[in-house]
Order: sequence, then C-alpha cells, then structure tokens
Amino acid sequence: MNYTSLSKEELLKLREELNKEYSEAKAKGLNLDMSRGKPSATQLDVSLDILDAINSKSLLKSENGTDCRNYGVLDGIPEAKKLMADMIGTTPDHVIVYGNASLSIMYDQVSRAYTHGILGNTPWCKLDKIKFLCPAPGYDRHFAITERFGIEMITIPMSDKGPDMDLVEHYVNNDPTVKGIWCVPKYSNPQGYSYSDETVKRFANLKPAAPDFRIFWDNAYVIHHLYDDNQDEILEILSECEKAGNPDMVFEFASTSKVSFPGSGVAVFASSHANIEDVKKQLTIQTIGHDKLNQLRHVRYFKNLDGLKAHMRKHADMMRPKFEATLAVLEEELGDTGIGSWTKPHGGYFISFESLEGCAKDIVAKCKEAGVKLTNAGATFPYGSDPKDSNIRIAPSFPTPEEMAQAAKLFVLCVKLVSVEKLLESK
Amino acid sequence: MNYTSLSKEELLKLREELNKEYSEAKAKGLNLDMSRGKPSATQLDVSLDILDAINSKSLLKSENGTDCRNYGVLDGIPEAKKLMADMIGTTPDHVIVYGNASLSIMYDQVSRAYTHGILGNTPWCKLDKIKFLCPAPGYDRHFAITERFGIEMITIPMSDKGPDMDLVEHYVNNDPTVKGIWCVPKYSNPQGYSYSDETVKRFANLKPAAPDFRIFWDNAYVIHHLYDDNQDEILEILSECEKAGNPDMVFEFASTSKVSFPGSGVAVFASSHANIEDVKKQLTIQTIGHDKLNQLRHVRYFKNLDGLKAHMRKHADMMRPKFEATLAVLEEELGDTGIGSWTKPHGGYFISFESLEGCAKDIVAKCKEAGVKLTNAGATFPYGSDPKDSNIRIAPSFPTPEEMAQAAKLFVLCVKLVSVEKLLESK
Repeated sequence: MNYTSLSKEELLKLREELNKEYSEAKAKGLNLDMSRGKPSATQLDVSLDILDAINSKSLLKSENGTDCRNYGVLDGIPEAKKLMADMIGTTPDHVIVYGNASLSIMYDQVSRAYTHGILGNTPWCKLDKIKFLCPAPGYDRHFAITERFGIEMITIPMSDKGPDMDLVEHYVNNDPTVKGIWCVPKYSNPQGYSYSDETVKRFANLKPAAPDFRIFWDNAYVIHHLYDDNQDEILEILSECEKAGNPDMVFEFASTSKVSFPGSGVAVFASSHANIEDVKKQLTIQTIGHDKLNQLRHVRYFKNLDGLKAHMRKHADMMRPKFEATLAVLEEELGDTGIGSWTKPHGGYFISFESLEGCAKDIVAKCKEAGVKLTNAGATFPYGSDPKDSNIRIAPSFPTPEEMAQAAKLFVLCVKLVSVEKLLESK
Repeated sequence: MNYTSLSKEELLKLREELNKEYSEAKAKGLNLDMSRGKPSATQLDVSLDILDAINSKSLLKSENGTDCRNYGVLDGIPEAKKLMADMIGTTPDHVIVYGNASLSIMYDQVSRAYTHGILGNTPWCKLDKIKFLCPAPGYDRHFAITERFGIEMITIPMSDKGPDMDLVEHYVNNDPTVKGIWCVPKYSNPQGYSYSDETVKRFANLKPAAPDFRIFWDNAYVIHHLYDDNQDEILEILSECEKAGNPDMVFEFASTSKVSFPGSGVAVFASSHANIEDVKKQLTIQTIGHDKLNQLRHVRYFKNLDGLKAHMRKHADMMRPKFEATLAVLEEELGDTGIGSWTKPHGGYFISFESLEGCAKDIVAKCKEAGVKLTNAGATFPYGSDPKDSNIRIAPSFPTPEEMAQAAKLFVLCVKLVSVEKLLESK
C-alpha cells in the first residue's frame, strides 16, 4: 500500500488505526536505546580475554626491550605500531599510536591547527574565517568539534559512492579558507556507504587552494564488516595521495574502540612523514606518552591482522542478526509504502533512514514518547540541523535482536503515523 | 677544606689531582642516568599485582552499575573519583578522573583557556599579552607548555617556604595580563620544598587583577613521602580558596604515575564546581571518556587511601636508600668545601644542587663526558636558562643505591673540578 496515493478519507481511517496501535505500543512501556553506536554487554564479552593478555607474571617489555611499565615512547611500542598500521593498511613509519580514543586525536589535530598551525602555516586562530566541508548525513561528534572552534561548516551531499566530489573539488580547489573535510570513508556514519575508488582517487588528486588543507579521514569502521562475503574495501588514501603528489594532505584516524573495549582501546593517527614529525614535536609538550601496557595487552591478544579479523568475525556474528532483524521489519512494514527509504550496509554500526521531508523530528519524538530512544533528528547534519528534516540514524548494536525487532516495529509505526499526518496536511 | 679560601697554588695543585681522578673515573666507562624522575624497574615491580586486579572473570561494573567496558562516563567512575579525591584531600564532587597523565590535563587547561577562555572570559589567543609566574627552580615541562603558547614567563624565586609571595602578590594583584602560576606545592620539583601554611593561605587570599587568573597546582608528589616520620603536609588549597572567597582560582592536578605505573596510571583534575562544570562541558566535545577499566583496576587494587599509603611505603623503602646514598656522598665530599649546597627533601623525586655561580652547565657536561647523565643545566628555569647557571637537578630514582653512590661520587668530582677552574679564573 503506497501511502502517498491514498485519499484523505483513507488517510484519516489509517490514522485512527495507527493511533490505536500507538496507544497500545506505548502501554507496553518499552525502554530501548538505539541512539548511539554502542556495543551490547554480550558483544563486549567476546573481548574479555584481552584482560588476561598481560598479568603480573608477563614479560612486560616490548619487542625492542622497552619496559612498558615505565615512562617513555611517544609514538607507540613497535609491535602496536605494526598492528595498527596493518589494520588501516599502511606501514608503521606512518603511524602514531595514541591512548584510548580517536576522537581525542581529531580534537587535538583541530585544536593544534587552531593554536599553532599545520606544518608552519598560520595558526587558524589568527585567520578571520575557516571553513570545513561536512559530507552529510555524517557523524555528529565531528561536527561538534568544528562548531566548537567556530569553523564554518558547509554541507556536502552524500551518495553511495561518497561525498559529491564535484562540489568538494569546487570548494577545496578554489577557496583558501576551506581547511578541512570530515570523512568516514568506509561504512560511513550513518549511511554505511563506502567511498568508491574514483572518489578516493579524486580526493587524492585535489589541488587545494589552502596549503594547510587536510582531509580528516576517520577510518572508524575499517575492519567492521557484517559479512564474510559482501565486504566493502576502499583504496588506501595515504598511498593514493603520495602517488598524486599530495603526500601531506591526509590526517587518518582509527581505533580499536569497537574491536576491543570502547574507552579502553588503542587509537591510531596516520599521516605522511612530515605530518608525523610535526605532530610528534608538538606531542612532546603535551604528554609523556600513552598507555604502553594497554598497547602491549592488545598486541599480545590480537597478535596480528589475522587475529583482528578473526575477532571481528565474532562481533559480526552478534551484529548481523540485529541489522537483519531491523531491515526485515523495515522491508515488511514500509517496503511498498513510499514513506521511507533506508540503507542496507555491509558493515559499520548504523542504518540510515530517510523519511518524507519534515517528518524526522516528529518520528524521533514519537519513538521517545513510547520508550525507544533514537539519535536526535538533525544530529547527522552540521549545526544539528537537517535542512529536509528527513534523516534518522538507527543504531542497532545495543539492544538484542529481539529487542531490536520490537524497537523497529515501534519505529515503523511512528514513521507511518507521522507520515500520515504529514500527507494529511497537504490534502 | 674550604675551596674558596685556597690560594692559587693550592688550587692548581688540587686541579692536577682532580684531573687525574677524573681521567680514572672516565676510564671506568660508567653509564648512569640521573636525568629524569623515573622509577627503576625494581621499583615498578612493587606495583605488578595491579595488573591482576581485574581479569576476564572479574565483575567489570562500577559501584553504580556502569559497565566499565563500554562507552560513557566523562568524569570517572564513582569509586575512582573517591580514591583520587581522598588522595589529594578533597571530595569527589570536586574532581574529574582522567586518563594516564596529569601533564596532558595541564596542557589541555592551558590550551582550552587559549582557544575558548576560562568561565566565559576572553580566549587568551585573542589577547595581546599573557604572562605566567614561574617559581624557579621548577619543572621544565610546565615551562615548556607555557612557552609553547607564547606565554611570557616571569621567574619567581623559591625558598623552603614556597615561592616569594611578596612578588607573587605584586604581580597577580596588579597585572591583569598575569593569568597563571605554576606550582608544585609539596616536595617541589626539584627542591623538594613544601609550601608553608602561610604560603598556601597567601595564595588563597590573592586578589587577582585578572578574573581568569588560575593557580596551576600540580600536586604531583602528594603522597610521595620518603619517611614514615618527617612527612611534610600542606594545607588543602581548594578549601582554603573557598574560605577566602576565591573558590574558582585553582586548577589542581595529580596522578598515580609514580604510584602505580608511569604512563599507565590514572590522573585527576580538581577544582571548584563552576570550573568542573566548565571543563566537563568542553570535554564532551573532546573525548568519549577515559579508560574506565584502568580506573577500576586501580580502585580494586588500592581500595582506599590507606591502600595507597601502604603502597607508597613500599616505594619509599626503595627510594630512601638512593636519596641517602646520594646525600651521604654530597655531605662527605662537599660538606666543608663551600662550593655547593643542596636540599634534603622528605619526599618527592629530586635533590636540588646549587653550585658556585656559572658552574652548572660545565658540571653537567663533565658528568656526561664521564657517563653520568643529568638533567640539562638550566632546564629548571623558564626558557631553559638559569640566570646564575648554578642549579642542577639530581634524580636518584632510576639507578640502584650502589650505582647512585657511584654516580654521586663522579658528580662531586665534577663539581670540585669545575669549581676549582672557576675559582682560578678570579685569581
């Protein structure tokens, strides 16, 4: 039944039925959270043995003899650099292993560009205007960082091949106040899209008007596949940029937050040798080094890239049913209604839903009222404002598959109800 | 034998003997490091059981039910807040528990003041001139942070009661460009002095010309006593400031870097409720939270303040012989020479040595030439420049007591040699 072709009378009748259903649903007193890309407790159990990877009896030296218990080492112990470099497809000389969160590295990179400039360029705080391109829908915490620094954010539309590269090239190659772009190139947040080879190559071949323009390449879901087959792979950006004569143009970020433990993982920054040296020089002022025992714990447990991949299959086995439960409800309930579309990612943590224009906020509010928490509508756009009010991010990771099916059912009910109201407005 | 009253001939003869001794010492090929306040490997062994405090079988929830493995919690799990608050003598509502290093918190506090301002005041990057007071000799990494941000550093002389408070009051109460002061109030780095009650009270009663003036109170050695008796205690600064009507004037820092593991400890920021709220608001942009599993590991092991204190006695038992070995050599070899004086701290990590004016750099160089590494002369002053070239920081923690005695013997030999040269210059 396509809702958009219903008559006013049919819509009114439908609304009555849906309102009744909604009242019943509300009475169930659900309390489910689909708001953030947060693993469930059961999913975290698969990583528990990491905590046994080192103990008081372990040799606590890194492979080059460093006592991991003591001060020293700014860029990570060698075996952690190797593991993290392998994870993102680069080499250890291109990485600095950090503490527990890639978000802090991103903040730091923006903050230091603001206070001290990048590779000798003018600090951004001394410039009148700084702009960032923000492919959207995107990750709210990226936008929060640039907003915090008063950086003007320009929305760039996304497709299943990545950001609109005509627009990206237009801005980056002509406007010297455009200093950066936020990218989640693989299993993008929230759509789960992966950048096509052409997109990555066009990124690598940008001719920035600003010498300190950087691509903020948040490779958050680099090994976060849902399937053994149907895995997305993207071109490695650092080597592509090097080939294109733009070696310094990328700041890449990743972490094991959704591999080992959120908050207790290991994060990595990757870039050209020149950028790495620049950052290391600044880091000496900022820290005495990151947690090397936690680096050792991770390396001893995962051993190598194969170990990481094997571990991610355990995560996938727990995530896949949640995605599939959600997608099944969406398909069954909304497949032929014409009031919504959604992505079917092969990895990552999210499903992105597009409602009719002007409905997203109301849908999220309706869900909340009935006990299902979603990411705030608008959060996936710069300044928290979705111009079409249509994008909703669904994070299926935290509830169980059964709860997820329940939550999805309530969600589709709210989509229907709000859409019917919207359609009635124009009758 | 007082060197300063020797004749030219006596000095020349002495120089000959000392040069011979120095050649012999050099031939031994020593390789000892007294440059940084770094625990020895044996000392770190006393903390090994911390690594067993949690494992895959442990309940990994905090006392309020938070799953410490997952995302969430910005200011620390409750039991970690309690432990760290107890350690510095305040209450949990005044603290934020951070990651592994207090230095990063200090950098962050300066950096955010620079980019966004403190409690609504003008960001420092928008001001023409910012000054910090730097009691010296002091900690080189403090000075490195302010230097990095282009902040003008004003040296404040130290006494065994703390910084020269007449000068501090003069600058802070009259100059609105003075925005901060670096303090290590207990077992100061490098002198091991602890601020007297009068000093702390005068700090609390400052009447800053700048509304965003802050005391950067680095309580790095708060429980780092060397003796069971003879322990220094200082007044608690947050409550003193509150009493004096200056609740927001202090940023306090501490960590377990020299309690558990350097680089893998837990750090804490303490301040007024208003400052804590301001920082938390900013932290939401900057991080998803710190390592809660490591917080849990620390709390499960130490349990409470008594546990911390008992643990610190084990450290003291290893540190004390090193301090005593060093002090014995200094006393025996230089006690009556008039060419040097030194501090005899009851805690902390350092002994501070004062040579004749203009000798420190040469002494450090001579030591290095013979295989004993000291902190660079000058490092204990702003801009790495000691106006009298007389202060040398000795860090006895890393070598064994026997090595420390060896190193101290070489050190006093170099002091004698360089002093004799200096005395000969004026003959």
